Amino acid sequence: MRIALAQLNYTIGDFETNKVKIMDAVQRAKREKVDLVVFAEQAICGAPAYDLLNKVTFLGLGEDALVEIASCCDGIAALIGLPIQKNNRTVSAAAFIQNRKILRYVSKKKVVWRDEAYHLSCGDGCEFVTLCGHKIAVVIGHDIEDEQEYVSYADTVINLAASPYYRAVIEKRYEELSRRAYTMNKNFIFVNQVGGQTDVVYDGSSAVFNCYGEAIALARSFEEDFVVVDIDAKNEPLEIPYQHKTVNVYRAIRLGLRDFFEKNGYKKACLGLSGGIDSAVVAAIAAEVLGPENLKVLMLPSQFSSDHSVEDALLMADSLGLEYDVIPITKAYETIMDTLKPVFGNLPFDVAEENIQARLRCVMMMAVSNKFGHILLNTSNKSELAVGYGTLYGDNTGVISIIGDLYKSEVFSLARYINHNREIIPERILLKEPSAELRPEQKDSDALPPYDVVDAILYRMIEEGQHREEIINAGFDAEVVYKIYGMILRNEQKRYQFCPTLRVSSCPFGKGRVMPITSKYGF
Amino acid sequence: MRIALAQLNYTIGDFETNKVKIMDAVQRAKREKVDLVVFAEQAICGAPAYDLLNKVTFLGLGEDALVEIASCCDGIAALIGLPIQKNNRTVSAAAFIQNRKILRYVSKKKVVWRDEAYHLSCGDGCEFVTLCGHKIAVVIGHDIEDEQEYVSYADTVINLAASPYYRAVIEKRYEELSRRAYTMNKNFIFVNQVGGQTDVVYDGSSAVFNCYGEAIALARSFEEDFVVVDIDAKNEPLEIPYQHKTVNVYRAIRLGLRDFFEKNGYKKACLGLSGGIDSAVVAAIAAEVLGPENLKVLMLPSQFSSDHSVEDALLMADSLGLEYDVIPITKAYETIMDTLKPVFGNLPFDVAEENIQARLRCVMMMAVSNKFGHILLNTSNKSELAVGYGTLYGDNTGVISIIGDLYKSEVFSLARYINHNREIIPERILLKEPSAELRPEQKDSDALPPYDVVDAILYRMIEEGQHREEIINAGFDAEVVYKIYGMILRNEQKRYQFCPTLRVSSCPFGKGRVMPITSKYGF
Repeated sequence: MRIALAQLNYTIGDFETNKVKIMDAVQRAKREKVDLVVFAEQAICGAPAYDLLNKVTFLGLGEDALVEIASCCDGIAALIGLPIQKNNRTVSAAAFIQNRKILRYVSKKKVVWRDEAYHLSCGDGCEFVTLCGHKIAVVIGHDIEDEQEYVSYADTVINLAASPYYRAVIEKRYEELSRRAYTMNKNFIFVNQVGGQTDVVYDGSSAVFNCYGEAIALARSFEEDFVVVDIDAKNEPLEIPYQHKTVNVYRAIRLGLRDFFEKNGYKKACLGLSGGIDSAVVAAIAAEVLGPENLKVLMLPSQFSSDHSVEDALLMADSLGLEYDVIPITKAYETIMDTLKPVFGNLPFDVAEENIQARLRCVMMMAVSNKFGHILLNTSNKSELAVGYGTLYGDNTGVISIIGDLYKSEVFSLARYINHNREIIPERILLKEPSAELRPEQKDSDALPPYDVVDAILYRMIEEGQHREEIINAGFDAEVVYKIYGMILRNEQKRYQFCPTLRVSSCPFGKGRVMPITSKYGF
Repeated sequence: MRIALAQLNYTIGDFETNKVKIMDAVQRAKREKVDLVVFAEQAICGAPAYDLLNKVTFLGLGEDALVEIASCCDGIAALIGLPIQKNNRTVSAAAFIQNRKILRYVSKKKVVWRDEAYHLSCGDGCEFVTLCGHKIAVVIGHDIEDEQEYVSYADTVINLAASPYYRAVIEKRYEELSRRAYTMNKNFIFVNQVGGQTDVVYDGSSAVFNCYGEAIALARSFEEDFVVVDIDAKNEPLEIPYQHKTVNVYRAIRLGLRDFFEKNGYKKACLGLSGGIDSAVVAAIAAEVLGPENLKVLMLPSQFSSDHSVEDALLMADSLGLEYDVIPITKAYETIMDTLKPVFGNLPFDVAEENIQARLRCVMMMAVSNKFGHILLNTSNKSELAVGYGTLYGDNTGVISIIGDLYKSEVFSLARYINHNREIIPERILLKEPSAELRPEQKDSDALPPYDVVDAILYRMIEEGQHREEIINAGFDAEVVYKIYGMILRNEQKRYQFCPTLRVSSCPFGKGRVMPITSKYGF
């Protein structure tokens, strides 16, 4: 049986484009004498579609597209994911088409992903089809975990998925597929979506494992792909590609940013280049993805900016060939302070004045964005967002955040990876001590230990959900642990108003981690 | 059988305070010779607790509190809601306590509320207990809709709920309780939470209906209450109180704002008073809830502000006895424009300059907020948020929005209600035409019809989910309908970064309506 894995990049709600892509893949599969072509879960509509999944018109357009797709499936079978209505509720289904007929719908039973928990109802789970003498179990998404449903009957398991990327998920999926294939003595075929959908990135990485647990077909990660394999033939086992985690994070961010711009019809971006590492990394990635000609960087020095800040930012803009403007905020800051003088009186300089500078930079960046149509890129990292460094309506702004799910130490790793061929980010930027430069001699480490320590604590608290006592028992300073915990709790409000953030971890702030704002819980 | 309805205001995660409240109510019930005291769903922990519901420590603290509560239930039975672990998943349960023993847990089957869909698993649903010769069905939340589960066995149905307020829900609940009680010939007892939890407001309105469908006990709406009724006695039927919808909306907002401040430990607030109706309504409510001495208003005129704007704002501040500051933004605006001159060149005045003014006001308001610790109240309404009037990082800012789920016409109704005894909001403010005053002679109606028309269209699109063709067929101008629809779609990004908004409608933006940002869906 010749099977094609059609790993495509869909756009949510763009039924026409998705349909054409799918039909092109069917035609290619027919040319390549394929018996069965498999598409991802929710291929026809794109995912996650949130409330659209509960609109009758949205579902109707999906079924219309399916009928058209079926009409071109002469002499071939296909499995295609789409949401359908069942007992007045929406389920995620796989349509099985054979020789132009839609023969049945398999529906997903395990609705476990946070982004669809409210929108999808539980379907019936695994069902079987027979094709070319194979007994095939069709499972969608996490239904693959219900092994007892298919262990005894099928010889081949096909898993349609819309499984988002997060650090280490690709290796984890391969391992599980290989283990299941080997222990159950079956072929396993996994077909995933690929592409960025606002904050979600699907990595693709579709694959086929034979009953010895060997990979016999591997689609690329972070790109569209079309792979054909004959599961009855003798296939040479393939080596599972290994990628350093930083490389995959880099590819995920690149894809997420590219698709956010492409699918929204955006072309040009801008960002504030401070001379620090975060904005340097964002600028380097954006220049590569959008082209240096589509990126404008802004230097916004104040009286507290060190000389090297603008110098380093200019160096970087030059090395990337970026258009830039230097917009000093000192005069505007002074005028604002003059205006506020009757209100502030002689009260000493504090966080209010610091935030005025950060917010004034936002006014300037958004002014340029509004005037010239550049999309403002946010430059915050996850460590800052966790402890509440960063100013609401100041540097915490932008249309999309591309490194907001990376801890500061991960931003450093990414910077070093970006520089692995040539020095794109000036070495000085990598070596200087992080500072917001909102008051004289300010350093990020004034109130907290260095970032490697902070990040280790944050990772345990957020990603691993460890209790404070566990972290202290692991050898971290109790006072620091309690302080950081308090800072995380207090800053839920700021994070609530943060922009969409490309998700690359298993516990991203925003849609991936929802805490009450008003709460007395402190354990 | 004497039953007490303990309708209390809980704080999320504040197990100690919630426990003491519950134990006080148990003691009172014992003094009043009650056989069974009933508390709301998730009483012990408060709701909605989101990701906290999946923390083992959080659940453990709830069970510890329950054990203590049980220990004071000598000679009395109690039903108390709390989340528990069942098969490694969290379910919403009701603990049945009799004479100091926790006898069993009933668990909720229908998890239908969006805010808990991901966090709660489905339990087993309705179970029965026998007390004082009554066969009682215990159901949690929407499990009351599974009538077949209890129709034949029980004579009395007790429904523990955490049912949030939205317009008309109180009348709807009374009607359904009365209908069920009458058609099934049973007593129905409904106990709800009361109080604000960030953007959610529980209205209370607990009630008992006898088997004739008559109300025989009614707890107050929007306040704590403790009501005792003997369901075996002959009870005079009570009249269902009627409240105009605007009155209930007003009470909901008042409660939501009060609890947001109390539960977060906030005292003082500030807001920008523009001379328009939205900020006037927010100021009037905030002055009543927080006390005029805790509210500071800011007038932030620019060169485009009309004379009457500051005058009317001053009139209002005086009439309420509010502290105020006038902070003109003209000079700072001019300095910013000077700074941007080399970048903007001679490009004409457009939305960039309009937004600079709105954002400069945000800089000033947040500066005052940061300097003096006042919590900034947002003043946007739902019509603006829908069509994207309002500036991101400008007037779309604040820690909480209290009228952001009210259409402009509803804000007018609320203003008239606020003025029903004495003119708190100057009549001139109610009569003037809405304008953002960001360019000469600007009016909100420049690009769109008057708000009553816009609001009627928005209501059909958002609350009723009507298709554009339906709205046009109802007699609305096709061009306007399409234009508004396009504006709603385009502004998803702005709403994503909007602050928490007190929910008073069945379809509030934010957590109550989640749309993809990147989507080509336009049907």
